[in-house]
Amino acid sequence: MEINEFRKHAHAFVDWIADYYENIEQYPVKSTVEPGGVKSQLPPLAPEQGEKMEDIFNDFQNIIMPGISHWQHPGWFAYFPANNSPASVLGEMLTAGLGVQGMIWDTSPAATELEEVVMNWLRDMAGVPPHFTGVIQDTASTATLCALLSAREKATNFQVNQKGFQKTLRVYTSGHTHSSIEKGVKIAGFGRENLVYIDTDENFAMRMDALEQAIEQDIKMGLTPCCVAATLGTTSSMAMDPIDEIGKICQKYNIWLHVDAAFAGTAAIAPEYRNFLKGIEMADSYVFNPHKWMLTNFDCSAYFVKDAEILKRTFSIMPEYLKTSADEKVNNYRDWGIQLGRRFRALKLWFVIRSYGIEGIRAMIRLHINLAQEFAGWIEKDEEFEILAPVNLSLVCFRFVKPGQSEEELTALNKKLLKNINASGKVYLTHTVLNGRYCLRLSVGQRNTRVKHVEQVWDLIKENTRDW
Amino acid sequence: MEINEFRKHAHAFVDWIADYYENIEQYPVKSTVEPGGVKSQLPPLAPEQGEKMEDIFNDFQNIIMPGISHWQHPGWFAYFPANNSPASVLGEMLTAGLGVQGMIWDTSPAATELEEVVMNWLRDMAGVPPHFTGVIQDTASTATLCALLSAREKATNFQVNQKGFQKTLRVYTSGHTHSSIEKGVKIAGFGRENLVYIDTDENFAMRMDALEQAIEQDIKMGLTPCCVAATLGTTSSMAMDPIDEIGKICQKYNIWLHVDAAFAGTAAIAPEYRNFLKGIEMADSYVFNPHKWMLTNFDCSAYFVKDAEILKRTFSIMPEYLKTSADEKVNNYRDWGIQLGRRFRALKLWFVIRSYGIEGIRAMIRLHINLAQEFAGWIEKDEEFEILAPVNLSLVCFRFVKPGQSEEELTALNKKLLKNINASGKVYLTHTVLNGRYCLRLSVGQRNTRVKHVEQVWDLIKENTRDW
Repeated sequence: MEINEFRKHAHAFVDWIADYYENIEQYPVKSTVEPGGVKSQLPPLAPEQGEKMEDIFNDFQNIIMPGISHWQHPGWFAYFPANNSPASVLGEMLTAGLGVQGMIWDTSPAATELEEVVMNWLRDMAGVPPHFTGVIQDTASTATLCALLSAREKATNFQVNQKGFQKTLRVYTSGHTHSSIEKGVKIAGFGRENLVYIDTDENFAMRMDALEQAIEQDIKMGLTPCCVAATLGTTSSMAMDPIDEIGKICQKYNIWLHVDAAFAGTAAIAPEYRNFLKGIEMADSYVFNPHKWMLTNFDCSAYFVKDAEILKRTFSIMPEYLKTSADEKVNNYRDWGIQLGRRFRALKLWFVIRSYGIEGIRAMIRLHINLAQEFAGWIEKDEEFEILAPVNLSLVCFRFVKPGQSEEELTALNKKLLKNINASGKVYLTHTVLNGRYCLRLSVGQRNTRVKHVEQVWDLIKENTRDW
Repeated sequence: MEINEFRKHAHAFVDWIADYYENIEQYPVKSTVEPGGVKSQLPPLAPEQGEKMEDIFNDFQNIIMPGISHWQHPGWFAYFPANNSPASVLGEMLTAGLGVQGMIWDTSPAATELEEVVMNWLRDMAGVPPHFTGVIQDTASTATLCALLSAREKATNFQVNQKGFQKTLRVYTSGHTHSSIEKGVKIAGFGRENLVYIDTDENFAMRMDALEQAIEQDIKMGLTPCCVAATLGTTSSMAMDPIDEIGKICQKYNIWLHVDAAFAGTAAIAPEYRNFLKGIEMADSYVFNPHKWMLTNFDCSAYFVKDAEILKRTFSIMPEYLKTSADEKVNNYRDWGIQLGRRFRALKLWFVIRSYGIEGIRAMIRLHINLAQEFAGWIEKDEEFEILAPVNLSLVCFRFVKPGQSEEELTALNKKLLKNINASGKVYLTHTVLNGRYCLRLSVGQRNTRVKHVEQVWDLIKENTRDW
């Protein structure tokens, strides 16, 4: 494709993207295609000869688009959001155009140095103490794996890296933790049996007596406590583990404290919501995802560590072909994570923070939290519904209830309710199970979600349950 | 930012990107900024109020651009390439605009199903046997880690995942392997001492007698041979491990065979260069990176496995909040790798393959290999230079030589030569060390590299060494 062809198509794509945003509410939030519905329309073999971009783009519109669930639709209340923004898309365009691979400082100094600066900005914006150093990872799963590996190496004086496991290392987390903790524990070779699930209290937060008891018991058994993985804002119910208390226990027993605030961390940009971070100064590592709630395109996960030397020593490799004369003076981020190659992700983050300013991001956070709390208020006032977890930040866990119904019947009714409101195409919610109770999750976080969209959820719910 | 503002800026950015490509040869290939030169120009704190995109973009041009090394410059001969293309940038634009997170089928069926189809296309194009199943990973480092973990679990009947390490597992690779093997071995908990470096022959390929001897010795010692990580196209010198012979040894001892062809794999799209894949049917896993040489923006790594069930069982997690009614009928790629969240990477790959067609990609491969071979011919004919490794595909390892000079003197001269030609700003090469000899690497792979750019390297070299 000649440059002028590229120019023509790229302009057309810009208009398509802008039109898409203007008309996004005309799409059903969740794709309605059946399994196999997309691939059945695609040929089994690649074309021998190049095709015209017009034809490719037609297929994109006719075959791919019906199979897209619209994460940027203001009716998106499913999972956690992955909201983006015009500024972020602009940043992604330049990242794609430059095609830089920032594995080391030398391969594009600006990619490394902008990341350094922007991660300092983000740290200071988001209530993370100044003794932390930040680095961008792709996802919180990866950041959590980095934390588990650093904990593993610190606990063994870097001997697992060198010799493999010589003793049994234990990791503690709550039963409401994200699945990435278990995944990371398995990847890092601890073994799932060495992941100790600590009981939670009525708010789904880790119980301190149970944590300390588990640690004491392990020590008596000759096992080595290695890491506590605490969560601020669990995926199911936005529960907050008390990291100020966990931090003290970790210090007492010399255990690595990793704090996963993948979604909730963004809320700390608004000081009035920052209280869940109390004790964060005791953490060894901390992660939250600007790609969830901070207007930045997936992927962009912000990983902060107390001691960057431990992180680097955990991952450091130095083959001849990567040595450069600048190595002593700069950050080479290849040693700060799993991957060698790195996209220039700092650019979109810089665009977002500058375009919105801290105040602009705070305004969005406040709006979303208010919308969720307002929705929770409607639920509370309605005796046909109940709230199943404390309404923290912008997540509401609730269900339809009817006197005399068994748990099985309530589960069936709420499954039906979820299916029906999602079938409207106007909104998309997902579910979880809390204390054995099936419930719906309203997770507010899409950039353009306003009160009318939350009202629409409530209207759909009321309409569907009118005769129940 | 309102949509109309976005539209305006995005159009301007398209023109900027197109102009950048048209004028890219006016930039020095490698950035000339000093360490700290970018960050010293950036404020230490994020702005409280939002800023105008015009101002942000000005800073991008004035502060960031001088710190960019231009991977898309046709004078890029450093490392391996990370070439992109207009079609790929167009795909990235749509991926950014849609802002889809394809962690499971349900969150955008088209993202999953297009990946399935395009990975089949790629497998069949690139000489990978039809019993392999493909999945996109971010980088070969991650794919290699997936391979090591699958090998670990297969060798222990999934007991490391469950209980942690109960026995000593051994991994074999050549001394010329990529650093990601060592990194993966450490991450997966094997311990570096259990990574056995096998001697190489005069072509820097793994020696079969040494491999079998190492395996036999380990078995005698009561250790468990687990994985051989073979390389097709080493980073230093494009050496090819003989995977047909390695495959037989792996079958004999029931060892996982992982094959890393991160750069070279693309060459197999041209059948006449495919011979290095002889024996690939015996591999358990295979990776190559479309983001290196196949015109696809970083990141996009193609990972192929013989038995997808092992991969899924290695990574599978199933929290309540991710369960969907489609789970039995579809691929949920969250279980196919490290991360939960996933970008819609298949889109750019689909755009590239369709836009170029298989023939278009082959034409580029052939051109690049011919250019490298032509350059090697010039070196061979010149007694002041020598080639230090077999010239496989598009990589030439060479150095300046002068009778009577010690190795130290030759190293100093060649370092000086590399520094001088890179200082021209016209070309960018990097170095390696082979058999203790410092040498320059000419790695051809940027999309727009033509014979004049290779001639320019040669002219600069001759000019700089004229009086030596």
